[in-house]
Amino acid sequence: MNAEILAVGTELLMGQIANTNAQYISRRLADIGVNVYYHSVVGDNKKRLKQCLDIALNRSDAILMTGGLGPTQDDLTKETVAEVLNIKLAMNEEVLDAMKSFFTKLNRKMTDNNIKQAYLPEGCIIVKNRNGTAPGCIIEKHGKTVVMLPGPPSEMKPMFEETVVPYFEDKTSYRLVSKYIRIFGIGESAVEEKIIDLIERQTNPTIAPYAKEGEVMLRITARYDKEQCQYGHDLLSPVVEEIKRRLGNNVYSTEDENLEEVAARLLMKNNITVSIAESCTGGIISGKLTDIPGISSVFNRGIIAYSNMSKVENLGVKPETIEKHGAVSRETAVEMACGIRKISGTDIALAVTGIAGPEGGTEEKPVGLVYAALADRESVQCNELRLWGGRSRIRNVTSLHCFDMIRRYVLELNNKQNKV
Amino acid sequence: MNAEILAVGTELLMGQIANTNAQYISRRLADIGVNVYYHSVVGDNKKRLKQCLDIALNRSDAILMTGGLGPTQDDLTKETVAEVLNIKLAMNEEVLDAMKSFFTKLNRKMTDNNIKQAYLPEGCIIVKNRNGTAPGCIIEKHGKTVVMLPGPPSEMKPMFEETVVPYFEDKTSYRLVSKYIRIFGIGESAVEEKIIDLIERQTNPTIAPYAKEGEVMLRITARYDKEQCQYGHDLLSPVVEEIKRRLGNNVYSTEDENLEEVAARLLMKNNITVSIAESCTGGIISGKLTDIPGISSVFNRGIIAYSNMSKVENLGVKPETIEKHGAVSRETAVEMACGIRKISGTDIALAVTGIAGPEGGTEEKPVGLVYAALADRESVQCNELRLWGGRSRIRNVTSLHCFDMIRRYVLELNNKQNKV
Repeated sequence: MNAEILAVGTELLMGQIANTNAQYISRRLADIGVNVYYHSVVGDNKKRLKQCLDIALNRSDAILMTGGLGPTQDDLTKETVAEVLNIKLAMNEEVLDAMKSFFTKLNRKMTDNNIKQAYLPEGCIIVKNRNGTAPGCIIEKHGKTVVMLPGPPSEMKPMFEETVVPYFEDKTSYRLVSKYIRIFGIGESAVEEKIIDLIERQTNPTIAPYAKEGEVMLRITARYDKEQCQYGHDLLSPVVEEIKRRLGNNVYSTEDENLEEVAARLLMKNNITVSIAESCTGGIISGKLTDIPGISSVFNRGIIAYSNMSKVENLGVKPETIEKHGAVSRETAVEMACGIRKISGTDIALAVTGIAGPEGGTEEKPVGLVYAALADRESVQCNELRLWGGRSRIRNVTSLHCFDMIRRYVLELNNKQNKV
Repeated sequence: MNAEILAVGTELLMGQIANTNAQYISRRLADIGVNVYYHSVVGDNKKRLKQCLDIALNRSDAILMTGGLGPTQDDLTKETVAEVLNIKLAMNEEVLDAMKSFFTKLNRKMTDNNIKQAYLPEGCIIVKNRNGTAPGCIIEKHGKTVVMLPGPPSEMKPMFEETVVPYFEDKTSYRLVSKYIRIFGIGESAVEEKIIDLIERQTNPTIAPYAKEGEVMLRITARYDKEQCQYGHDLLSPVVEEIKRRLGNNVYSTEDENLEEVAARLLMKNNITVSIAESCTGGIISGKLTDIPGISSVFNRGIIAYSNMSKVENLGVKPETIEKHGAVSRETAVEMACGIRKISGTDIALAVTGIAGPEGGTEEKPVGLVYAALADRESVQCNELRLWGGRSRIRNVTSLHCFDMIRRYVLELNNKQNKV
């Protein structure tokens, strides 16, 4: 079954809000095997809404509409759909009663224009709204399905889960299952080169690459018919395993986690304590790490040594190191990492110094040059990064490299311990 | 001029990401007087992309496309547009050279499939990409304009601002000029109450409220015809000034800056040095502040004292203060601020301690309780915040309050000095 999502609302076209409803519905429909081929957004304008409906009815089996079910004059979704499908709207007493008791519960008076919301297309399936006044509905006509849901996500989502998901689950004869393979340390074109034969002969599952800032992601999607579901066929795992085999440790997750979540999970699981010294990233590495609940069990402290004085005073970097090699140097990064690890007594420490730009670059040390060091009780490693892009990108990608260093460190540690 | 936005990317249809590009472009086109009537999203599928292009060319003057300009096989935007408009793609040597030097600068090898990105529609206007390899372009044919931009927002946004905005500004016969009044420290309904008479009698300029996390924004938009532009009419300033007069210091910017930019600007302009001690925010306050170029002239260092031990060791908080009042208390926040200010020798220091959740709340000290202290050489002030929402929101809104404390501190300091 092919579906499209049609959102109605001038606030979307003005850029006041992003169409997060389409994202939510798309993701959930993909989970249950409904293909979403299009998203559209149109304003609160009858003529244009009608045209969009015509296009959608022509190319899709199901149309999921959000918005335009409110009580005001410019809410036209139901009226327009009824007109296009040639169905009458009729007052629904049950819905009216539900609305009345909703207002009573809130201790508010129902205004006359709310009554408009109790008019629904004849013969529709009602989608009850427990969190607002606008009911939704499902219409089936000429082999097409039109679903109408209100725009506010807090109303739309529970209605979608309670009524719309079960409705479509009953209709589909197959199931789609996706896995996301997340990759760091190798570029998109290099990934493609390594798996081009798999991509070229893909049928089921399908493989689709897409770029994320500083990393690569592959989506592997398998399609199961009813029988395959029943007998527990697994079309995904062989492909996922083959890709993991080819890309090795560059694959950091197949469970839709981001890099800081993986790094944090590995630290917490292995009870490895960490401290962080940041210069050019100015706190964002620690900031991202501490966005993860429970991280306080392993994250001890961070020092943002933005000035040279702070590198010396707070981290024990030798003034002569900075003088001789510069604040942005392998030597300074190493002393920063060793310094904060010693001060905080953590198992490992991470330190970063670099030139985020836009100013401060030289020919020898251009904008984007970053040193990232990871120290443990015995040794210290340091990576030289040469990043491109603006200040924000350089800082963000630096943080990804740092999380990846933590990840690879813990994986290697586990490997060593398993060998012993 | 009527425009629509057509995004290409299966990741959007799968719900992996929200179409924030459409929101960004819509808002900016509204600013310069281009009406956006539709958004569409289609997958990496040639047939369906062609159909969407046909529909768009039929109903809109300008089509702004994002995505599908990457180096891989399923990136089809340029090829499909060229086919539909019957234009040839030709290798552009200038673009190829730029790509080559981009890769050289990064010390990376350009793979063969990148060369595909140097093919552009004949006769197009090139939209240079300083932050990635995919150039964009603008095509004019049969009175229609097609703009193609890459999908990653960090590449798309600067390209849009540098080349696409000026392109459309030249095309429109009138000019819309908007000012965003950004407000912190007063809620949306309170703002509305104070200016309800202005809202009710608005015609030109118009006043539209926008909700943003933790703050309030008003967009004031004036429409000028050519003559008004020529004679330098200013419809905006009287309204903006009246709103500023009514809302006082709660207005933190009319120049579309965010709160950290304003705080940073005030610190830099007045040469006030600052250090920051963070607990629950874990580095995001320093991280946001250091996102601003040039901040190193006033930002000295930050300490992320996540553990109690770090609060004692790195900030000089007395162990008995934490024991008696708790790590989340007015007393601890004050000692953190005074401690880091003394250690770093900065003019002022900011410190934050709180409960960001989801765990760690008690009846007496619930999730969302935050203390933020600001110390200078003579005194210290501390605000108790009671915030709602999840961990991310609490941490983010805390940072807004901190930047606002800095802002109000500097404004008051300037006021005092002016009086003397």
